[in-house]
Amino acid sequence: MERVRACVVGATGYAGVEVCRLVLAHPALELTMATDRKEAGTRLDAVYPSLAGACEIVLSLPEPDAIAAAADVAFLAVPHTASLALTPELLARGVNVIDLSADYRLHDPAVYEAWYATPHTSPELLSQTVYGLPELFRAGVAELAARRAAGEAVLVAVPGCYPTATALAAAPALASGLATGDLVIADAISGVSGAGRGCNARTHFCHANESVEAYGVAKHRHTPEIEQTLSEVAGREMSVVFTPHLAPLTRGLLSTVYLEAAPGVTAEDVQAAYERAYADEPLVTALPAGSMPATSSVFGTARAQVGVALDDRRRRTIVASCAIDNLGKGAAAQAVQCANIVLGLPETTGLLAPAPLV
Amino acid sequence: MERVRACVVGATGYAGVEVCRLVLAHPALELTMATDRKEAGTRLDAVYPSLAGACEIVLSLPEPDAIAAAADVAFLAVPHTASLALTPELLARGVNVIDLSADYRLHDPAVYEAWYATPHTSPELLSQTVYGLPELFRAGVAELAARRAAGEAVLVAVPGCYPTATALAAAPALASGLATGDLVIADAISGVSGAGRGCNARTHFCHANESVEAYGVAKHRHTPEIEQTLSEVAGREMSVVFTPHLAPLTRGLLSTVYLEAAPGVTAEDVQAAYERAYADEPLVTALPAGSMPATSSVFGTARAQVGVALDDRRRRTIVASCAIDNLGKGAAAQAVQCANIVLGLPETTGLLAPAPLV
Amino acid sequence: MERVRACVVGATGYAGVEVCRLVLAHPALELTMATDRKEAGTRLDAVYPSLAGACEIVLSLPEPDAIAAAADVAFLAVPHTASLALTPELLARGVNVIDLSADYRLHDPAVYEAWYATPHTSPELLSQTVYGLPELFRAGVAELAARRAAGEAVLVAVPGCYPTATALAAAPALASGLATGDLVIADAISGVSGAGRGCNARTHFCHANESVEAYGVAKHRHTPEIEQTLSEVAGREMSVVFTPHLAPLTRGLLSTVYLEAAPGVTAEDVQAAYERAYADEPLVTALPAGSMPATSSVFGTARAQVGVALDDRRRRTIVASCAIDNLGKGAAAQAVQCANIVLGLPETTGLLAPAPLV
Amino acid sequence: MERVRACVVGATGYAGVEVCRLVLAHPALELTMATDRKEAGTRLDAVYPSLAGACEIVLSLPEPDAIAAAADVAFLAVPHTASLALTPELLARGVNVIDLSADYRLHDPAVYEAWYATPHTSPELLSQTVYGLPELFRAGVAELAARRAAGEAVLVAVPGCYPTATALAAAPALASGLATGDLVIADAISGVSGAGRGCNARTHFCHANESVEAYGVAKHRHTPEIEQTLSEVAGREMSVVFTPHLAPLTRGLLSTVYLEAAPGVTAEDVQAAYERAYADEPLVTALPAGSMPATSSVFGTARAQVGVALDDRRRRTIVASCAIDNLGKGAAAQAVQCANIVLGLPETTGLLAPAPLV
Repeated sequence: MERVRACVVGATGYAGVEVCRLVLAHPALELTMATDRKEAGTRLDAVYPSLAGACEIVLSLPEPDAIAAAADVAFLAVPHTASLALTPELLARGVNVIDLSADYRLHDPAVYEAWYATPHTSPELLSQTVYGLPELFRAGVAELAARRAAGEAVLVAVPGCYPTATALAAAPALASGLATGDLVIADAISGVSGAGRGCNARTHFCHANESVEAYGVAKHRHTPEIEQTLSEVAGREMSVVFTPHLAPLTRGLLSTVYLEAAPGVTAEDVQAAYERAYADEPLVTALPAGSMPATSSVFGTARAQVGVALDDRRRRTIVASCAIDNLGKGAAAQAVQCANIVLGLPETTGLLAPAPLV
Repeated sequence: MERVRACVVGATGYAGVEVCRLVLAHPALELTMATDRKEAGTRLDAVYPSLAGACEIVLSLPEPDAIAAAADVAFLAVPHTASLALTPELLARGVNVIDLSADYRLHDPAVYEAWYATPHTSPELLSQTVYGLPELFRAGVAELAARRAAGEAVLVAVPGCYPTATALAAAPALASGLATGDLVIADAISGVSGAGRGCNARTHFCHANESVEAYGVAKHRHTPEIEQTLSEVAGREMSVVFTPHLAPLTRGLLSTVYLEAAPGVTAEDVQAAYERAYADEPLVTALPAGSMPATSSVFGTARAQVGVALDDRRRRTIVASCAIDNLGKGAAAQAVQCANIVLGLPETTGLLAPAPLV
Repeated sequence: MERVRACVVGATGYAGVEVCRLVLAHPALELTMATDRKEAGTRLDAVYPSLAGACEIVLSLPEPDAIAAAADVAFLAVPHTASLALTPELLARGVNVIDLSADYRLHDPAVYEAWYATPHTSPELLSQTVYGLPELFRAGVAELAARRAAGEAVLVAVPGCYPTATALAAAPALASGLATGDLVIADAISGVSGAGRGCNARTHFCHANESVEAYGVAKHRHTPEIEQTLSEVAGREMSVVFTPHLAPLTRGLLSTVYLEAAPGVTAEDVQAAYERAYADEPLVTALPAGSMPATSSVFGTARAQVGVALDDRRRRTIVASCAIDNLGKGAAAQAVQCANIVLGLPETTGLLAPAPLV
Repeated sequence: MERVRACVVGATGYAGVEVCRLVLAHPALELTMATDRKEAGTRLDAVYPSLAGACEIVLSLPEPDAIAAAADVAFLAVPHTASLALTPELLARGVNVIDLSADYRLHDPAVYEAWYATPHTSPELLSQTVYGLPELFRAGVAELAARRAAGEAVLVAVPGCYPTATALAAAPALASGLATGDLVIADAISGVSGAGRGCNARTHFCHANESVEAYGVAKHRHTPEIEQTLSEVAGREMSVVFTPHLAPLTRGLLSTVYLEAAPGVTAEDVQAAYERAYADEPLVTALPAGSMPATSSVFGTARAQVGVALDDRRRRTIVASCAIDNLGKGAAAQAVQCANIVLGLPETTGLLAPAPLV
C-alpha cells in the first residue's frame, strides 16, 4: 500500500504524541515529520521514552514550506490561535489539515471571539470546514474526501473531548424526538491528561491523586461547541449547562447527560433508540439495557460506549452516559478517523485495536 | 474527663473501623468493645494492621447483653436489616444507639419497604428517631441530648454518604428560596470504599483503577433519603434524579447538584446565601466565589466544603458542589458528631483535625 | 495472508484476555476459540466490555478434541497443573502449545515438585520444551520452528513476569563477565494485575491503592526460574535473593538487580555491555547512560527497557533496572513473540505498537 | 496546659504544611507563625484549602527577629542551605530549632560539602547538634531537653525520609550482630510527595501515574546519611548501595534492605532480635513472623512498621522492610516527636492517631 505522508504539528503535547503513536502503527500513513517549537532539534523519543525503538524522528520547527515539502496531511495538535496562524498557510500550499484545536469548530466567528477572547482571523474558511464527528456528520466529512480527490486541500475541525462524549450521549435522545425541552445538563469527568502536559498546581500528582473536583463551572469553553452540535442534531436551539470534573486517571472521559423525556416515552423506547442509532457504527457501541460504560473499556482507543436509562419515577428524565478516551476518540484517534475518510481509506483503518486492561 | 464507654458493632467494615479510629483518638470516648460476626475471636489489629500499637481489642460477637454490659453508646456500622434486629434490643437495655445503617433514616416505613424490599420490623421507633445531619436538623439531635440526660436511651439515624453531600450542596439554595421548581439533579462521584470491604469484580483494583463509570442509575437506594431531606428543607415535595459514579480513589465523595434559579436571582445572591448558611458551622465551609471543592481537602475528616455558581446564560441554573469524605462526614465522623451532641459534649470533640495531604 | 487459527485457553484471566487482544489485532493469527471453565457459554465481551464491537466469541470448555478441531496453536493462560493436564493431550492431537503457566519452565522436575508442591506428571516433555525468552534463548525457539515445519507439534514454556524482567536486567552483566560472584539480589515491583483476576483482600482497590508492600519474601516461586536462567547465562551456578513488591498500578513490572562488579570494571564498560547486548533487539532497548526505565514507557507492549549504573564508591556494585509490562512482555506479548517465531513469522508481527501515555 | 509557641518556616512545602497540621492538632503546641518567602501575605488556607476552617494564619517572611518574637520553637522545613542561613540566627535569639533540612544531619562537614556541593557555613554547630531519630539515638535527644531546660537554645537535625526507614529496617540486624559484612543494599520506594511541591515533568500526574521507576541511582544524597547512621549502629564502617524508586502514591515510603547473615543465624533469631529491638517503642512496631508492612498502614502518622525474613537457601541473607509515611515519621511527625522530647513533653504527644484507611 502506498503510504500517505503525515506531519504532526505540536508533537510533544499529549494529543500530538498520541497522533504520532497512531500514525506509527497505521498501515497507510507514514510519519515523515513532527514539530515542536520549544524542543526542535531533540529526538521525539528523548521526550517520550515510550517511543524508543519505534521512532527516530527529530523534532523540527513548524515551518509551512517544510511541512508542505514533507507531508500530504498535517495534524495540528496545537493550542487555539496557533491553528489560525498555520492553517491558511498549509491549505494554500496544498496540505490537508486535520485540526485538533478549537479554532475552526464553531461555525459562527462571533461565538468563537466571545468565548476565546481573540479575533478569528480566517472566518472565510469556516464555511468550507467540516466538524469532524463522523457518527453525527459523516456526510460532511465524506464530502471533503470528494473535494480532496478533486485536488482541493481540505480542513477538518476535530471536536473537543467533552463535546464528543456529550454529543454521543445526547444525540440519539434528541434525534429520535424522545427528549423534549431545550435543556441538556451535562456532567462530565475527565482524566488529568485533558489538562495538558504543562505542569501546574492542578496537574501535580499530589493534587490530582485521590481527589475529584469540579472546575470551569458555568464557563468552560466547550459549552458553545456542545450547544452547536446538539442544536443541529435536535433541529432546535438547545441550551447546555455543563460541568466538567477532574478525576485521578490519566486518560478517560465520561459525560453523563440529563434530558427531559417526552410524554409517554418508555425505557424500552429509549433503549431501542440508542441501539438503533449506533447499530452500524464500528466505533460506537450502545450497551445493553442496564449497563453503563466505564472509561477503562475504551482506554487508548477510538471507541465510544454509551449506556442509557429512563428515570420514570416522577420527573421523567433520560440519563445517558458516554465513555471515551479523551486523547483517543476525544482527540487523536478521531483525528485519524477523519483523516481516513478524507483520504478515501476505510474509516477504521488503524483504529480497531481494543483497549488493554488498565 | 470521665470517658463514655463505646461499642462499635460491625467493626471490620470500612465505616466501622473508621468509627474505631475516631473513638481511639477521642478524648471523651473509650472503645470498650468491637464486634464482628465473622471474625469474632480475632484481634482487630490483625485485620487492620494500621491499628497495631494503637488497639489491643479482640473482636467479639454482637450480643445485646454483652454490649449493654460494656457500653453506654453503640455505633452500628452494619448492613440494613441488621440494625432492625439489634437496635430495639439495645434501646431496651438502655444503650444509646448511633445507627450508621439505612434502617431508621426514612420516616415512612412504606418507603423503606419499597426501596429495601424488606419489612420494617420496628416502625414504632421511627417517630422517636432523629436524622443525624446536625447542620440541617440540629434541634432534633439536641432534643435527644435532653431526652438522654433524662435517662432515656436514644436513637440517631446517621445519614448516608450521598444524602449528606447532596443535602449540604442543595440546602442553602432551597432554604433561601433562590431555587425554584421541584427538581434537583444530583450527579455524584464516590471513592471505592463506598462499595464496602467486600471483594468483587467492581472493587478489584484492576477494575476500579484508571476508570470512572456511573452505576445504580435511576434506582440507587439513597434517592428517597435525599428527597426526604430536600423536601423538608424546601418545604415542598422535591424530586431528585440521582446518578452516582465510581472513581479511582479510596475515600472521597463529591455531589454536584443542579437547581433552577428563581427569576432575578444573581450570582451574588447565591454566593451570599451559601456563605450565610454555613457561616457558623464549624465543620462545613462555604468556599469563596469562584472556588469549587476538592475531595482531598476533606480526606479523613468530619468536614464538608461547598462551592456554588450560577449559570446565567440561558437556562439559569444554580450549580453547587459539596465535597465530603464518604467514610468521614459521610459516615463515621458524622456518627461521632451526633454522639457528641447526644452525650452533651462539644459537637466537634475529636473531630477538628484537618485533612492530611493525600 | 493465510491466517493461523489460535485458541486461547483460560481466556478470562488477565493474561488470557491480553492474548485475545493481541491475537485479535494480529495480521497472521485468527482467534477461533476461547475457553473458560467457569464462564463457558458466555460471550467474552460480556466479561470484558472492552471487547464489545471487537469480538463476538462465546467462551467454551477447554476440551482437547474441540481445541484441536478449531486451532493450530493454543495459548495456555492457566494456573500451574492445569497445563500439565492439557498440554500432552494437545500435543498428541497436533496442536502447538504456547504455555504461559509455570508447568514446563523448570528443566528439573524435582525443582518443580519442590517449589510447586505437586508431582510433575509429564517430565518426559521437559527435554523437548524450549524456554521462551527469545532475547536470551532465540536459537532454541527457532529450532522449534524447524521442528514444527517438519510436522511436529511443539511446546514453548513462556517465562514468568519476574524472571523475564530480572533476566533481561542481569544478563548482560553476567554474560559479559563484568559481574563477578554468585549472588544476584533482585528487588522487583509489580502492578496488581500480576496477582490475577481473583478478588481477595490484597487485590481490593482500598488495600492496593496508595500503598506499597513486599510479599512472598524469600519464598516466591519465581526464584528457581530466575536462578535457572541466570545460571545458564553466567555459565556458573547463581543464587538469587528475590523480593517482589506490590504497587498501585494495574500493569507494569520493574526489576532492579544488584551484582558485584569485577575488579577494574568502569561505568563505561557496563554501559557499553548493555548497549551491545540489546543493540539488535527490536523489543529490548538499553537506555542511554544516566537513564533508568519507567514501566509506563512499556505499558501494554511487548517491549522491555533496561538501564544500568555502576556504584563505584566503595563496594562496587552493578545496579540494573528493567521495565516490562507484566501482562505484555511478561506474559501475553512474549507468548505471541514466541508463537511468531515458531510459526515462521517475523518475530515482531503484531507487537510493534508503542505504549500509549498512561 | 500552657502551650509552647511554634513557628513553621517553609510552611507551604509538603513537609511544612504537615508540621502545621500536626501543630494545629497538638495539645501543647500553638501555631503562632508560618512563613513562606514567595507567598508571604497570603493566608495559608488559601494555599491549602484543607485548612479552611482550621487555621487563619497569614504567611509571613522568615525574619529571625519576627520568629524570635513569635515562637519558642521553630520548625525549619526548608531546602538545604536555607537552614544554614537561618539556624545560627535563630539559636542566637534563643529559639530552639527543629531542622527538617539536610544541613546539620552529617557530622562531618566535608561529607556535606562533597554531596551537597556547597560550603558548610556553620560547622561549629555540628558538635552540639543531635540527629533526631529517637528510636536509635534517644539519649542524645533527651540530653537536648536538659540543655534546653538549663536555658540553652538547642538544635535537632531531623533525619531524611529514606535514612529513617532504612535505619529502622537495618538497625536491629546490625546492632544484634546477626548481620555480618560491611554492605547493606537498600532498595526503597517512595510516594511522589517526596519530590516536593514543585511542578516538573516527574511530578506531573500523567508521568507518575501507573508507573514505577528508579532514580538517583548510585548518587542519591541520602546515601552518606544512611551510611553514617548504620556505621554508628553497627560499630564499624558500613557501605550502602542505595536505590530509590518512585511509585504512584502521594505519601508512603518503603525501604527493603539486604544484609549478609552471620553464620548459624536462624529465622527465629532474626525475628526475635527485631521484636526485642522495638518492644518498648510506642511508634515502631515489629510485625509478627511472616508479615511484611504496607505503607498504607502508617499513612499520615508518626509510626513505622518493620518486617523481617531470613532467606536461608544458599546465600543466607537477612531481608527487612520498613514502612513509614515520608511526610510523617519521615519528616514532620518525627520533627514533632523530637520537639516533644526537647520540650519535656511525653514523646508521643499529638502523635498517636492511627492511620485512616487510604
